[in-house]
Amino acid sequence: MPEPYPESLFHHAERLRKIPLRTLFAEDRERSFLCRNIEGIYVDASRQRLDAAAWADLLRVAEQVEPARSDLFAGMPVNETENRPALHPALRDPRPEGLVVEGVDILSEVHRQHQRMREFAETCATRWQTVINLGIGGSDLGPRMLCETFPRASGAPDVRFVSTLDPEELNAALHGCDANQTFFIVASKTFTTEETQRNFSAVKQWLVEQGVGSGEVMEHFAATTAATDRAQESGIDAQRIFPFWEGVGGRYSVWSTVGLPVVLHAGWGAFEELLAGAHAMDEHFREAEAESNAPLLLALLMLWNHTFLGAATRAVLPYNQGLRTLPRFLQQLQMESLGKRADTHGELQEVAAPVVWGGSANDGAHAFFQLLHQGSQVVPVDAIIARGDLENERERALLAQCLSQLDLLASGRTSEEVEPADGVAPGHYVHPGDRPSTLFLMEDLSPRRVGALLALFEHATFSVAVFWGINAFDQFGVEYGKRLSRSLAEALQDSSVPAPGHTLDALLDRLRHR
Amino acid sequence: MPEPYPESLFHHAERLRKIPLRTLFAEDRERSFLCRNIEGIYVDASRQRLDAAAWADLLRVAEQVEPARSDLFAGMPVNETENRPALHPALRDPRPEGLVVEGVDILSEVHRQHQRMREFAETCATRWQTVINLGIGGSDLGPRMLCETFPRASGAPDVRFVSTLDPEELNAALHGCDANQTFFIVASKTFTTEETQRNFSAVKQWLVEQGVGSGEVMEHFAATTAATDRAQESGIDAQRIFPFWEGVGGRYSVWSTVGLPVVLHAGWGAFEELLAGAHAMDEHFREAEAESNAPLLLALLMLWNHTFLGAATRAVLPYNQGLRTLPRFLQQLQMESLGKRADTHGELQEVAAPVVWGGSANDGAHAFFQLLHQGSQVVPVDAIIARGDLENERERALLAQCLSQLDLLASGRTSEEVEPADGVAPGHYVHPGDRPSTLFLMEDLSPRRVGALLALFEHATFSVAVFWGINAFDQFGVEYGKRLSRSLAEALQDSSVPAPGHTLDALLDRLRHR
Repeated sequence: MPEPYPESLFHHAERLRKIPLRTLFAEDRERSFLCRNIEGIYVDASRQRLDAAAWADLLRVAEQVEPARSDLFAGMPVNETENRPALHPALRDPRPEGLVVEGVDILSEVHRQHQRMREFAETCATRWQTVINLGIGGSDLGPRMLCETFPRASGAPDVRFVSTLDPEELNAALHGCDANQTFFIVASKTFTTEETQRNFSAVKQWLVEQGVGSGEVMEHFAATTAATDRAQESGIDAQRIFPFWEGVGGRYSVWSTVGLPVVLHAGWGAFEELLAGAHAMDEHFREAEAESNAPLLLALLMLWNHTFLGAATRAVLPYNQGLRTLPRFLQQLQMESLGKRADTHGELQEVAAPVVWGGSANDGAHAFFQLLHQGSQVVPVDAIIARGDLENERERALLAQCLSQLDLLASGRTSEEVEPADGVAPGHYVHPGDRPSTLFLMEDLSPRRVGALLALFEHATFSVAVFWGINAFDQFGVEYGKRLSRSLAEALQDSSVPAPGHTLDALLDRLRHR
Repeated sequence: MPEPYPESLFHHAERLRKIPLRTLFAEDRERSFLCRNIEGIYVDASRQRLDAAAWADLLRVAEQVEPARSDLFAGMPVNETENRPALHPALRDPRPEGLVVEGVDILSEVHRQHQRMREFAETCATRWQTVINLGIGGSDLGPRMLCETFPRASGAPDVRFVSTLDPEELNAALHGCDANQTFFIVASKTFTTEETQRNFSAVKQWLVEQGVGSGEVMEHFAATTAATDRAQESGIDAQRIFPFWEGVGGRYSVWSTVGLPVVLHAGWGAFEELLAGAHAMDEHFREAEAESNAPLLLALLMLWNHTFLGAATRAVLPYNQGLRTLPRFLQQLQMESLGKRADTHGELQEVAAPVVWGGSANDGAHAFFQLLHQGSQVVPVDAIIARGDLENERERALLAQCLSQLDLLASGRTSEEVEPADGVAPGHYVHPGDRPSTLFLMEDLSPRRVGALLALFEHATFSVAVFWGINAFDQFGVEYGKRLSRSLAEALQDSSVPAPGHTLDALLDRLRHR
């Protein structure tokens, strides 16, 4: 269990609630103790409600990350409830060997699978026009996001994604596809996921309906899975089964063979750079002193905003369209890793894990920013933007929008600053300010920078889980929810089956008797 | 100002916090006082933490909606700060005349513009392959969502949407377009919106670059705007300028000419049905007694969950891909309408307006549902699903997923119900339950049902604003934010311009000196 937080932090929080960010900036125009420059990402947290004294005391909490951090990189079972390591750092480790987990030299196996992905991508480019990834959750969000972020390589197939049970989604993805030119990746850690298995069945049927010979249907499939036996039993050729391991959690799996769609879309070189950027962040997280460690900064900011200042949510606001799915990716990473109450001993605690939400910031400025600016509720903001070319009027305008919004959130607008308006009380124009934010100013959206950015958030998530005394790598809450629907589907079909659960009797009567 | 809430409600909240939903269902398996059936939408709020006694007292608050509701439908200036009516109900009023606002017979003008949209759509279908809507916020989200929800009519153009400053978004939309076959709608209430004006300029240049004669470029444009003079000055033919009015707020504007892309995509018949469904909900809101009034139910649930039970957020979770943008639409509708602290007299208050977030529920079940199920924070849920065909295995499975998730959120899983597992403490498997939800079970996603659904949320939003004493129709917070970026763009370009704001000095030095 983590140690109790230093008592002084509660006093700092009380004190800093009353000090406007304007005042903190008037005293120190740089506030550089809250800024980091790492791997082409300038992390500017100067608009967080901390001063040097509070920061110094907060840093003491960071010490708790050891020994968990050492265990993570050593391949020890940091996922204690499931008695597994968390192998995502190993997936981007360039060393040829040197990490033995349960008797297996995991690094050489990682490189062997990466090599297979690379070779497979080369054969795909000339053979298939369209590749559709069938996967959901961790088998969908990471590769989907990165295929939006990175440009399509010359000659690469058109890579699409289908995740849900709604047949409309699959129909839309298949629209206009030539069956002879369409390939599918069945992405499922357990190879039992209901949505993915139903989509797998549906596309096999589609291929046959489209005239693909029954002997050739299975040539249209690959699998990325930790259950290679099941994939093989389903008829997928072992040559096209790309394994990953139990120790790779879905939300941490884009670095594994689950990233195959990214290799197909953006090319092996891009994927290799992605891994290199993440590895550089791994090294930084592992080696940098706490006061300059970027993942620890983010973790401490989450602790500060949610445990000490009581914020219920955090908004993730990318300004670039290429990062439009980042809010959903970080939502999964953080809500699935942190949204639990059982500490590492199974005791139920209050955990301050926030709802992570957000979306395109430029769109948001014309919509939900109203509440960020003038609502009662304080929402800490993460704004992410590629610096762009300041000589380009349009890119300059986008950066100016981003920075002016963050300044307004922090600085506010007092009633004295409001110009009198006919018939409108000044209160309507007041912005309370003191809304904290962190700016992620990226040199560019190259795979290396994006890899570093994702690893930054992974390690921040892991670290704050340590501060909160929970396991960032299990997800018992989503697993149980997935299991319950089968008996309900039966009850919907057969009126003699009693309604499961405790709240569905009357609703099932209604549905079954019409 | 609204009256104080009945004291008894605070006692009910305290009492009901301790009564599990399981117990409430054991006492009354139907809880039909929280269910409504209206316009093919079955609203099932039985899983909300209310009993009959609390509901009876909560209903007394509903009386406050009069006289605001009468004023709304009478075209009175319910938008008091801007001294304007809120005309969205008039936009779907089928009466030929009878609503005079500031001396203008608004209904005949509404019908005249709808008729123009209809005729224009007929000429478009044969002339243009692709239509791109250039608009942001209220000029984007509504039509974008509905073009995803409704099927494309036979012979209809391919309708696309571009909202932001990021040139990548525009480039992606123009990709593969034949300039001679591509038409643009410039959608902007003020016709000054920076993003939209820059996109307007960029596509004019694109048309010329693609070889469209300079005399023909402006034939590729229409405008939907409340600033018809500005649109005409920009060179758009008056024949293709489709006005709406100051009294139509952006987030309430999809019923106006802003809905033109929907008419082009889905056909006039679909749009007419959309209006009819919304009008039916208007009549219901206006006439139904409080105890059976669906918008008032939703408004009272927001009051209950956010003011009395303290929930900071609400999740909007559609199960159908066709409604995937509904969370963003309702996010704008509710966070922009309610995210403010100034009451109607301009006095600053604490307002319990929630962060509205969400996304595809089926995807969420493999991701952020972890926090909904096992987190400390209680998130009320709105789940929306079309009933589907229960004979179809796949559609049945989707409905079963939805209902079993809502039951688990409500019922939870106690430590006694957990089967012992090797080495894992039962606490990891416990679901606390008592997470409230409202199910919106729709007959189908036809335009009429969807129109009714959107109007249901509009009126709920308006009503809860009355309860909270705020104006649902202004948005001073986003307006000021939009204005500030110009001086910052100058400062980014010219180092002699001082940094505006209070927090940007050091950051601008950094950006300008590299």
